[in-house]
Amino acid sequence: MCPDIICAGEMLVEIMRAEVGVPHLQVGGIYKGPYPSGAPCIFIDSAARMAKARKLTTGFIGTIGNDDFGKVVVEKMKADGVDCSPIATRDGFTTGVAFVQYNKDGSRKFIFAAGAAGQLKDSDVKDAYFKGVKDFHVMGSAMSISPTSKDAVLKAIDLTIKNGGIVSFDPNLRAEMMPLDKIREMVQPVIKKTKILLPSGEEAMLLTGDKDAKAACENLLKMGPEVVVLKEAKDGCTVFTKKETIKVPAFKVKEVDPTGAGDSFGGAFVVEYLAKAPLKDAARFANAVGALKVTSFGPMAANSREEVEKFIASQKI
Amino acid sequence: MCPDIICAGEMLVEIMRAEVGVPHLQVGGIYKGPYPSGAPCIFIDSAARMAKARKLTTGFIGTIGNDDFGKVVVEKMKADGVDCSPIATRDGFTTGVAFVQYNKDGSRKFIFAAGAAGQLKDSDVKDAYFKGVKDFHVMGSAMSISPTSKDAVLKAIDLTIKNGGIVSFDPNLRAEMMPLDKIREMVQPVIKKTKILLPSGEEAMLLTGDKDAKAACENLLKMGPEVVVLKEAKDGCTVFTKKETIKVPAFKVKEVDPTGAGDSFGGAFVVEYLAKAPLKDAARFANAVGALKVTSFGPMAANSREEVEKFIASQKI
Repeated sequence: MCPDIICAGEMLVEIMRAEVGVPHLQVGGIYKGPYPSGAPCIFIDSAARMAKARKLTTGFIGTIGNDDFGKVVVEKMKADGVDCSPIATRDGFTTGVAFVQYNKDGSRKFIFAAGAAGQLKDSDVKDAYFKGVKDFHVMGSAMSISPTSKDAVLKAIDLTIKNGGIVSFDPNLRAEMMPLDKIREMVQPVIKKTKILLPSGEEAMLLTGDKDAKAACENLLKMGPEVVVLKEAKDGCTVFTKKETIKVPAFKVKEVDPTGAGDSFGGAFVVEYLAKAPLKDAARFANAVGALKVTSFGPMAANSREEVEKFIASQKI
Repeated sequence: MCPDIICAGEMLVEIMRAEVGVPHLQVGGIYKGPYPSGAPCIFIDSAARMAKARKLTTGFIGTIGNDDFGKVVVEKMKADGVDCSPIATRDGFTTGVAFVQYNKDGSRKFIFAAGAAGQLKDSDVKDAYFKGVKDFHVMGSAMSISPTSKDAVLKAIDLTIKNGGIVSFDPNLRAEMMPLDKIREMVQPVIKKTKILLPSGEEAMLLTGDKDAKAACENLLKMGPEVVVLKEAKDGCTVFTKKETIKVPAFKVKEVDPTGAGDSFGGAFVVEYLAKAPLKDAARFANAVGALKVTSFGPMAANSREEVEKFIASQKI
């Protein structure tokens, strides 16, 4: 099996406070879980659900513990069509767990037990798996979680380019993660090899130092990517190329849980790009996938491509 | 601060399925937590709540992550009077987490993310802390969780004996943990240095190879301990010495959650032993502490010594 779209990185379950305002410190409070998660997994699961009708296949490289939480993530991805054959079990490590607390001011607080999630190594990335690769998707989180995971991602990038595929890249970075110069040092060589860059406004500004997201995206475009897709959450997205800038407004939905919306958006956009959809249509489709995600609880959505198309058809914009 | 009773080992929180029969595999199921836990912590917390009236002090050596779960365990122990000054924070590790699933057949299934819990080292055990030690309590789990944690426990045993204290020992072992010969190899040198041994029937038989718990306890007595206290759960306990065998029946209570009952029993027994209570009285008091634990949810109880004494006074046996 040599999939068209490959992603690699941390596999997690999320254990989420059931109510806003209940701190991790509250003894005996209620959590709900496990929910399959990990930004690279959310990306590839979204891509898989959208890819079939486009005759594209998906595959994932990652590491879990020998436990039920690992099974929860793998079973979800398999059910949605992701080839999980490269996923390795790391004895002595528990599948990664992220505990999520929702604060009343809208912020979240995490306790993160990385376990097997940081144990990806470049030896997990096999040459043969990339023979037919059309896109390898880089999640910044998979590079920052551990030095060996970063090595694995860098190897996958090189194998992809060697095999004639393209690289898409969601920086998925936070300023508090590491010093700014370290972030830029890590990210800039990847941006040079990237065809589709998918930053949030904050990430774009962080990477270039601009104080305006649009200016930042235009500067990012000069660093190598053919397309920069600025993810603007409730405001939709803006697609930047050297030729044009396309603002694509969002669909309005009732927010239940925004976790994973940007990653789901990315999976859908890459599928449509590879299927040679016009950029505006790809962005509109990805907006719909992100919007539907937001209406369901848990980081990884379940909706099919048919449901996305039905949703778009029902909208006025 | 040089406490009278010291324990060392894994510090955990438990995240527990709220209902019987809900597997870890169930996406979005309900967990309750965190609950402060870790067998050595449950022991010392029970000892602390019982020790004050006996003019005895308690202290704990362990490791947590720099997160809210670590705070939950430390705050509970501090509130109950345990000196927590030797507890170290391990950067890069999350506080240990045990996820508990309750099966319909009465068994439990754990997912265990050890994190900082296995990171105890002999350098965490400081000579000066043992200057006044009267008892160091060994939990078998603290020896099996990691080689460095085992080294720390062995150092604490030697420091205790050097300073004229005694060693109490709860084997806290399960046959599935490691091969039987490895278990015996690990445990036998400790039993030789032990004054008070607190096995369950299963553990006693595992350690000697006897097929009867009483015969096993009599054989354990020959290996060094002055007192062997056979913990018999709903059947109370039996105290073995070279002079006598004392059966002490249990108090009858409505079981809510048995987790931690044996560890709580141990803490209470050691306090009463050090206070020179007659063995039978110490065992009866410890039975009451175990019984009260069983009536509350979560591994670590909250009841005071006064409540234990009131409970005993209300009983007919």
